[in-house]
Amino acid sequence: MSAVRQLSESSLHRWFGLLVTRYSHDPRTVRRCAEAYHADPSAATLLPLQQSVESPRQELFNRLSLAPGGAAALVELRGGLLRGLAAHPEWASIDADLVRLLRAWFHPGFLELRRLDWQTAPAILEKLIAYEAVHPIGDWRELRRRLESDRRCFGLFHPAMPDTPLIFTELALTSGLSANVQELLEPRSPIIDPVKCDCATFYSISNCHDGLRNIPFGNTLIRRVVSVLERELPGIRTFATLSPVPGFRPWLTAAVERGAVPRELTVGLDDSQWVADRSRDAALERTLKLLCARYLLQEKSGTEPCDPVARFHLGNGARLHRLNWLGDTSPSGLRRSAGFTANYLYRLDQIDKNHRAYVRHGRVAASRSVEKLAASLGPLLTPTR
Amino acid sequence: MSAVRQLSESSLHRWFGLLVTRYSHDPRTVRRCAEAYHADPSAATLLPLQQSVESPRQELFNRLSLAPGGAAALVELRGGLLRGLAAHPEWASIDADLVRLLRAWFHPGFLELRRLDWQTAPAILEKLIAYEAVHPIGDWRELRRRLESDRRCFGLFHPAMPDTPLIFTELALTSGLSANVQELLEPRSPIIDPVKCDCATFYSISNCHDGLRNIPFGNTLIRRVVSVLERELPGIRTFATLSPVPGFRPWLTAAVERGAVPRELTVGLDDSQWVADRSRDAALERTLKLLCARYLLQEKSGTEPCDPVARFHLGNGARLHRLNWLGDTSPSGLRRSAGFTANYLYRLDQIDKNHRAYVRHGRVAASRSVEKLAASLGPLLTPTR
Amino acid sequence: MSAVRQLSESSLHRWFGLLVTRYSHDPRTVRRCAEAYHADPSAATLLPLQQSVESPRQELFNRLSLAPGGAAALVELRGGLLRGLAAHPEWASIDADLVRLLRAWFHPGFLELRRLDWQTAPAILEKLIAYEAVHPIGDWRELRRRLESDRRCFGLFHPAMPDTPLIFTELALTSGLSANVQELLEPRSPIIDPVKCDCATFYSISNCHDGLRNIPFGNTLIRRVVSVLERELPGIRTFATLSPVPGFRPWLTAAVERGAVPRELTVGLDDSQWVADRSRDAALERTLKLLCARYLLQEKSGTEPCDPVARFHLGNGARLHRLNWLGDTSPSGLRRSAGFTANYLYRLDQIDKNHRAYVRHGRVAASRSVEKLAASLGPLLTPTR
Amino acid sequence: MSAVRQLSESSLHRWFGLLVTRYSHDPRTVRRCAEAYHADPSAATLLPLQQSVESPRQELFNRLSLAPGGAAALVELRGGLLRGLAAHPEWASIDADLVRLLRAWFHPGFLELRRLDWQTAPAILEKLIAYEAVHPIGDWRELRRRLESDRRCFGLFHPAMPDTPLIFTELALTSGLSANVQELLEPRSPIIDPVKCDCATFYSISNCHDGLRNIPFGNTLIRRVVSVLERELPGIRTFATLSPVPGFRPWLTAAVERGAVPRELTVGLDDSQWVADRSRDAALERTLKLLCARYLLQEKSGTEPCDPVARFHLGNGARLHRLNWLGDTSPSGLRRSAGFTANYLYRLDQIDKNHRAYVRHGRVAASRSVEKLAASLGPLLTPTR
Repeated sequence: MSAVRQLSESSLHRWFGLLVTRYSHDPRTVRRCAEAYHADPSAATLLPLQQSVESPRQELFNRLSLAPGGAAALVELRGGLLRGLAAHPEWASIDADLVRLLRAWFHPGFLELRRLDWQTAPAILEKLIAYEAVHPIGDWRELRRRLESDRRCFGLFHPAMPDTPLIFTELALTSGLSANVQELLEPRSPIIDPVKCDCATFYSISNCHDGLRNIPFGNTLIRRVVSVLERELPGIRTFATLSPVPGFRPWLTAAVERGAVPRELTVGLDDSQWVADRSRDAALERTLKLLCARYLLQEKSGTEPCDPVARFHLGNGARLHRLNWLGDTSPSGLRRSAGFTANYLYRLDQIDKNHRAYVRHGRVAASRSVEKLAASLGPLLTPTR
Repeated sequence: MSAVRQLSESSLHRWFGLLVTRYSHDPRTVRRCAEAYHADPSAATLLPLQQSVESPRQELFNRLSLAPGGAAALVELRGGLLRGLAAHPEWASIDADLVRLLRAWFHPGFLELRRLDWQTAPAILEKLIAYEAVHPIGDWRELRRRLESDRRCFGLFHPAMPDTPLIFTELALTSGLSANVQELLEPRSPIIDPVKCDCATFYSISNCHDGLRNIPFGNTLIRRVVSVLERELPGIRTFATLSPVPGFRPWLTAAVERGAVPRELTVGLDDSQWVADRSRDAALERTLKLLCARYLLQEKSGTEPCDPVARFHLGNGARLHRLNWLGDTSPSGLRRSAGFTANYLYRLDQIDKNHRAYVRHGRVAASRSVEKLAASLGPLLTPTR
Repeated sequence: MSAVRQLSESSLHRWFGLLVTRYSHDPRTVRRCAEAYHADPSAATLLPLQQSVESPRQELFNRLSLAPGGAAALVELRGGLLRGLAAHPEWASIDADLVRLLRAWFHPGFLELRRLDWQTAPAILEKLIAYEAVHPIGDWRELRRRLESDRRCFGLFHPAMPDTPLIFTELALTSGLSANVQELLEPRSPIIDPVKCDCATFYSISNCHDGLRNIPFGNTLIRRVVSVLERELPGIRTFATLSPVPGFRPWLTAAVERGAVPRELTVGLDDSQWVADRSRDAALERTLKLLCARYLLQEKSGTEPCDPVARFHLGNGARLHRLNWLGDTSPSGLRRSAGFTANYLYRLDQIDKNHRAYVRHGRVAASRSVEKLAASLGPLLTPTR
Repeated sequence: MSAVRQLSESSLHRWFGLLVTRYSHDPRTVRRCAEAYHADPSAATLLPLQQSVESPRQELFNRLSLAPGGAAALVELRGGLLRGLAAHPEWASIDADLVRLLRAWFHPGFLELRRLDWQTAPAILEKLIAYEAVHPIGDWRELRRRLESDRRCFGLFHPAMPDTPLIFTELALTSGLSANVQELLEPRSPIIDPVKCDCATFYSISNCHDGLRNIPFGNTLIRRVVSVLERELPGIRTFATLSPVPGFRPWLTAAVERGAVPRELTVGLDDSQWVADRSRDAALERTLKLLCARYLLQEKSGTEPCDPVARFHLGNGARLHRLNWLGDTSPSGLRRSAGFTANYLYRLDQIDKNHRAYVRHGRVAASRSVEKLAASLGPLLTPTR
């Protein structure tokens, strides 16, 4: 393991090559076993067939992982693999083997939910600063505001990697549902008594390990946080997100290019000052909201919504509740979400039902008002595809 | 999961039946995939084949394990399965699926070594009393002696089962290598300053979960204990076991029946008083020792020694160092080991080499003196097979 | 300190003698300072006077206490001093100095309340077995029943003595107020869901250090336990004790001797079988109850009740609520309390008021029914003094 | 207690006045007791005298301290008292009472030494930033460098105030004795393997509570740190300080004013650039060193050295080992210490002897070389007093 750790990037790539050529399953053996099973399908022929399709890499990775810090090192290894995967599609089989191992190891039942606050070791807190991907944390003063008594931060940890969360989320406790991200992040905002709050808003979720991509923790994290807070703060009635709509602005631009949306609509939308000046322009707000609702509810990639954040929360069983124009007026908020934020609601008693309807029938759970917005857009737009 | 937990034994057995008939892989699909691979062996045909040989049980168990306490419940489930396996050989495929999951979950890298002593929660210590399989612990007073400063007890724990060790071992710190078990267990024996000791003797290793049978933890446990003690007590030069030779007495009886050993030799061997009276009978001692050495070094089952304890320690890379006549004169010591104990030596710098020689060439690491004993038996015995 | 610790009893006694003769204040200095103050009472003359009345022992003890484990060693030292005090009344001044130090050190604000249960180190739990003074704990099985989920055990700990509580108390959680001790102690009694209980009964309070006699912890302990349980188990409405009346039987005997009570009344009272047979003798029960109420409410030593347990709980601000005939039929229960138990009620909102009335006016807080019992005894008895 | 906490400054001052006029001892009672003792000096008259000289404030403070957080609140109260003491000398008696209590409560035996590092809660680490009095910590990045593996930070904590150390010290682990403070503080300096270091340098000690002034913790802290590090890092042979000489520059100025030292000597000494340019001026260095040695060894206030840092370390039993010109060229280093640092050596086997010689005979422990410097100054200077 320590030899692997010290490999230069080029040596590592050569090693990956070796893993493909020398440590894959043996096609001849697979073929022989498949033929044997074909001739006589029984337990006696199945077992060899099962073994023949498992690559020797599995066992190699298993042994490497026994070294001290081995599991963490394999996670990092997969991070390196993924970075080169586009250029080396033949590594996909290595990735498949690693994913199989990592899925078993990072089993949700073995993950520990920990609250992170001003009592938590800086060795862990500095990871929040490093990995916050949604709303960057500028310094320790900003971090501190996010850990005060009316905020919550939770991470999922694996026993073999106690110093870095696998994933973490940040919440604000508020009276009434939050619409605006900048208000929540303001370091000088007054601190509210959490007992008087009725709403908990997830405003950020970030992963910390490239090497764990596609091994899902978000759903587990949100469910556990909700059930912890339900117990701790019985006054909280609403669990919701304050999320970006990161595919909306690109989609809008494409629609303009296509001539489906008048070009005038997007003029000025990248200029935060111009946008702020339109804060009372009800017509603009309404038109954009119709389009945003339409985008989220009807634009699909396969059976799922195009928007990646929508896919994540709807797939978890949440319901799209509300769209907030000027909810995020930061440069990235405009560039990605045209200034919108979306609230997705998490109700523990509905998420299983929503999840099933979503997975089986592609049904998007949304509030009546958002559904109405999407429906009332009418023939303004020609279909995108 | 909670439904499964409440099943009566007969319902559980019916459920196992269902798992075989309805949740096994589908032979037709396997066949079709095998044929496709056969026709065109490529990544595109391999993946379906891989998936087709995995049973739906895997996914079922995975989901069950997500329930709170799910992993522990599956361990218990496998315990029940194993108890009925002899009568239901068709359950073997269920067992194979469970083993595959449990092996990944109970990965040595995720196990925590904890010292157990008089500061440890009684909720854990009572498990020692319950599961000690080699030298039973009568009560809390006996337990306490085994946790004093010249004794050590270590357990391996999994984060999902924090209240019960997976396996634990007990050691005595002594000056000079111990030969006699009864001396070590005596509750009134004087307590020695551990700093003055030069030898650490493993005198007991016990597993706590039937449902983890054949998922090996012993090797990991011993290696970690040795490296912890090496750091804590630099005065310890020798790490050894004081082990039973549990197959010796039955083997001896069989040899008598076969006429390979004179019957007079075993007369009285079951009577602890008779044996104690022979403590100075050097001829008897020598004859039995020759036989015991012969049994351990030359009696094989396949390429490995017949004796299960020898198989375990030699497979771990230990070396058979010494045989002690009258080392265990308890009724079970006589009944199983004809009163013998064996010391196996663990030297961290040799166990990898010994392990390889054992696995590859069936070579048994033994001291010169034990080898000489085995060699000098001569033609007394006719071969057993 | 280590020299002091190794002194034999006789040497220790000589050392105590030295502490009196050589380490007391100097009467001539005190006299001179008192004269100076007398002549000119000012801050300038007060300070020397203050210093002159402090003995050099104070400083000696202070320095000894700096040794590792020094505070604990001084507690033990005072234990030895108290054992010899009756024979050496001149040691009283040493004791006064030690008490002054220990009172400051064992300040209630520095004591930690810990729940003791089946997760607690045996090194601490064995102290419960050793020091339980009210209802002895026979073995670990009996101890375990006292630590189940419908029982509570709490200790007060000082940071310098983390392994032994200063004092501990045991409670039972029940539906309805308990009257009978034997029921609570029964190891095989069924375990009740604590959430369904409405009453918490203190059935035992024990001190662990002779050397801390007269340094009161009981009041602090009970108040903290009540406020912890109020938070943890909001269903608990009643906090009460199930206490002995340890001076009742001796008082009764004395009353018989004096002719104030007919001798027939006490015949058979020492025989548990005889007593059990009278369990339906309402007249006997009533007569004894009248006498017991009379004893607790009206028999005084100075301004306080004679009964030591009554003094303790009433001084803490509790209220005498109920007397239970046959509440403790163990040999010691008969010998000391004539089979009675008493329930004292602790209500956090009343104990300060009760405490003040007790301290200032000697007023005993009691329920109407107990007061009526005491009042209705009439001229049966002649006054005891 | 909560009423006291909410007092405005002026109300608090009135309350202090009340404590003097109404809660002091009663002079008439003291007088009467003194007379009684005068007439008949015995135990019977001593006890009342002892009690009469104790003010009722003691008991008041004792009761206040029972409130939650009471001890911490009294510490803060004394902080406020000390800030007004110069203007209200009559409060000195209140202070005396508080000191007596606090000394007993903050007994060294009850204090816990904790290492503070990057695993420590930010709620504690931010106190280091707030209270570091010797070499201010600019931000979290600077703090982090002071907590790396070749640095150590230790605090003494009291159980009643677990979130703020009473006092803390910072050390650097180095090869060879450090002379220069700026090198140690440099955030970008390379991190050294602590196992290869032979020297541990205390470069800062700071108190955190004004209200604990004159209650000494520094000696306890240093001794415990030394013995912890001796065990942890056996390679450390030298424990020393890198200290300022804060009274040297003012003394030099006064000497110039007095005409005892030529004015030219101090021209430019306040200009860090000028000083840096003189780094090779051996004559200047030697003259200043002679004067600094003279200052530290011979300038006394009473029997002790004038320099407060010298008093602290010499009083603890350390030995003045070396003077380092240009050891601290920060503005405050020049302004206070004329650029000097001093190394005081702590050897556990000598500090008791040094301490006694210092306390009894005013003897300053110093190395031969520093003694020689002080002695060789000759008649350059006229005596200061």
